[in-house]
Amino acid sequence: MQLHGFNIIGTEISPGVSTFRAVNPSNSQTLEPAFHEAGAGDVDRAVRLAEDAFAGFRRQSPGRRAAFLNAIASGIEANDAVLQRANEETGLPPERLKMERGRTVGQLRMFAKLIDEGSWVDARIDPADAGRKPFPKPDLRRMLIPIGPVAIFAASNFPLAFSVAGGDAASALAAGCPVVVKSHPGHPGTSEIVAGIIVEAARATGMPAGVFSMLHGRGHEVGMALVKHPLVKAVGFTGSLRGGRALFDAAAARVEPIPVYAEMGSINPVFVLPGALAERGRQIAEGLKASVTMGVGQFCTNPGLVIGIDSEPARQFAGQMAGLMAEAAPGTMLYPGLRDAYVQGAERFAKVPGVKVAAQSRTPADANKTQATPTLYAADVRTYLANHTLREELFGPATLLLTAGSREELEQVAATLDGHLTATIQGTAKDLEEYRGLIALLERKVGRLLFNGFPTGVEVSSAMQHGGPY
Amino acid sequence: MQLHGFNIIGTEISPGVSTFRAVNPSNSQTLEPAFHEAGAGDVDRAVRLAEDAFAGFRRQSPGRRAAFLNAIASGIEANDAVLQRANEETGLPPERLKMERGRTVGQLRMFAKLIDEGSWVDARIDPADAGRKPFPKPDLRRMLIPIGPVAIFAASNFPLAFSVAGGDAASALAAGCPVVVKSHPGHPGTSEIVAGIIVEAARATGMPAGVFSMLHGRGHEVGMALVKHPLVKAVGFTGSLRGGRALFDAAAARVEPIPVYAEMGSINPVFVLPGALAERGRQIAEGLKASVTMGVGQFCTNPGLVIGIDSEPARQFAGQMAGLMAEAAPGTMLYPGLRDAYVQGAERFAKVPGVKVAAQSRTPADANKTQATPTLYAADVRTYLANHTLREELFGPATLLLTAGSREELEQVAATLDGHLTATIQGTAKDLEEYRGLIALLERKVGRLLFNGFPTGVEVSSAMQHGGPY
Repeated sequence: MQLHGFNIIGTEISPGVSTFRAVNPSNSQTLEPAFHEAGAGDVDRAVRLAEDAFAGFRRQSPGRRAAFLNAIASGIEANDAVLQRANEETGLPPERLKMERGRTVGQLRMFAKLIDEGSWVDARIDPADAGRKPFPKPDLRRMLIPIGPVAIFAASNFPLAFSVAGGDAASALAAGCPVVVKSHPGHPGTSEIVAGIIVEAARATGMPAGVFSMLHGRGHEVGMALVKHPLVKAVGFTGSLRGGRALFDAAAARVEPIPVYAEMGSINPVFVLPGALAERGRQIAEGLKASVTMGVGQFCTNPGLVIGIDSEPARQFAGQMAGLMAEAAPGTMLYPGLRDAYVQGAERFAKVPGVKVAAQSRTPADANKTQATPTLYAADVRTYLANHTLREELFGPATLLLTAGSREELEQVAATLDGHLTATIQGTAKDLEEYRGLIALLERKVGRLLFNGFPTGVEVSSAMQHGGPY
Repeated sequence: MQLHGFNIIGTEISPGVSTFRAVNPSNSQTLEPAFHEAGAGDVDRAVRLAEDAFAGFRRQSPGRRAAFLNAIASGIEANDAVLQRANEETGLPPERLKMERGRTVGQLRMFAKLIDEGSWVDARIDPADAGRKPFPKPDLRRMLIPIGPVAIFAASNFPLAFSVAGGDAASALAAGCPVVVKSHPGHPGTSEIVAGIIVEAARATGMPAGVFSMLHGRGHEVGMALVKHPLVKAVGFTGSLRGGRALFDAAAARVEPIPVYAEMGSINPVFVLPGALAERGRQIAEGLKASVTMGVGQFCTNPGLVIGIDSEPARQFAGQMAGLMAEAAPGTMLYPGLRDAYVQGAERFAKVPGVKVAAQSRTPADANKTQATPTLYAADVRTYLANHTLREELFGPATLLLTAGSREELEQVAATLDGHLTATIQGTAKDLEEYRGLIALLERKVGRLLFNGFPTGVEVSSAMQHGGPY
């Protein structure tokens, strides 16, 4: 597979203002070719082309837009080079990437089916009544319509399913909105391959040029220019709270504010209630360890906080968690910058007075393989509440185990949580009855509440809520 | 009816930090009693009480919440004192207020029916599949839940239907959200009467105290404090673009941003196409004159801009509009501040080089009766495009008639419009066929597009879109 490294603006390619290369995190080797960072002119051209394409694109019949999405799905399904390149750029294992490809294809086909079915437009028709008194009643019709060009920010941690042809792009294209993707610099080659598949699918199914563009960029400039462009009408974002919030603020401050659908950093607290701890503490510890270290902790639903009330079973549970985390192997993170952020975050955690490193992988991390060390921190609730650092996401294979002195302390942690994607309660039927107040608290803090599960793993289903406070 | 003039915080009344009195705009007489402006402490108490009430209120069965709304509706329906006081405070005629009361009651009952029916929660259930490979599938359930205390800003121009027990309050209470209303200082007594009915309905139907509070205030302090209060979770607003945007900005800048559902200043442009002008120019002029002057122009959907392409029928139409507007009688505006703003806005319009006062009511306005003079302005498209003043809402019985030199100029006006609540097209079947591009443009600018109608008049129906860009 020959990669060109350029920005893709409709059916054309465009050199940028500077270049960068991807790095294979598994061996720290630089990968070819050089990728071109888009300039302000590229952003403007891509958005204008999207706007030009919009009128024609939104008028395509649902069946034809569905054919476009299905063609993207088939193109990705048939492409093995993308798996190879994604593995080189992200260090994610081939098996995982194969599964992720299946998910990506499934998402695209789910949206294709949805537009073909059509009820998503939520049509409401209230017929006229010329004889109504004192005024005749007009015919009223209301439905959802596409909003216009959408800027989408690809995530690093799902180079296929939450990236160039991920859920955000699938839903925008399904709705009839042209898309300008800001690719993630961690996997530019993977992005180029997928972008090529989309451009080819658009050509093959007769979609207007400009329905899709993709721009590269390492800094904030390309993204900020997209969000501030007057012709961009909505934003889809997956990434850190800091980056997402900056885009949200810029979007809200526009003369015409636009919606930002953002999935951002999340702690995903897990509350382990007394009955469950006594009944199946070991089993919960094993599940949690798997959830914390799965994918080297690089999931937006990674559980970063576990809390229980002090008791003999709780102490046993803490010991089991420590043992399991010590056995966990270090893993390759997606790119060096992410690993560095993990190391710095870990240092910040460890420096907080009252925070103890309760366990750390026995195997040393290999820096050349961009590895991160699975780590378990422990603290009491007072320490947690007094130190805001502990509320920030530590993206990677680490979690903080909090011991509450009482039920009140546990509920206090829940009450002071910021918004998150998920919260999990591990509890027996009796626990859940007794902790109704906790459930009521958490319902208002998170998009999704899990019972006796683990937060990692997001189903592709219209019944799945995968959003938090934004 | 004895009015107390205090803020209403749950079941208690509270004096404020300063007082003001309402004025009867029909005769400029000050009305008793003095009303108390809330202080920061009142805002905090009302919101905390709403938060305290939330847990209990949201758990009420839909039937019981419906009973609460129906009790408010019956209380308002049975109350004639509120019509009397509203007439004194707003100058709106008794017949109009009676109709508005019917609308208010209808809205409350519509929402009561909706919660009783229940499908608005949009429940989605995706059952578990323990045998799925490679991972078992969990049981997934998703539905809408109430968000928490809602701050609602009452409008001046509908003292019943868009005020204390208006559509915003009805929908928030229906959803299970406690409400803190910031009353409009133009009709504080009307507000107190309605608030009393709500408090009594809450008591009679066993709702928790704090499910409803109402605060008075003339300046921005009370409203801004509400929007910034961490326990307020959403905002409903009806009013000016300037005021609403300030609240929107404050809400977006919070650590936890909250949604603002705002219905703000709108120009509601009317495009009169050539075929319609030739076929029924006179009829359109009559309808427009009625729409512009109805309710002394004090509707959010008042048509502030009318545009056609220069032609003999267009010139006739302009003459007819001028004749009709000259015959229109001045009317009493809601309160002196609104009339003053209209007079100042009219001066700003008239000062723009190229803008002509094409017609003005022959009857002089009576300042003592807070009257506004119906006025027709005329300009060409170039003048319009060059002067931003002409794009600002002139709230009152005035409209600007634009003559385009060509179809391109007419479409240029459409393309440069900001977002509005409505746009109207007057056109024959042939016009609509020929001006498909104009329709496509306007679809993206406004919440509601009208064909051969007039924008004033908002139906109470789930098929009615009554929102604009916010």
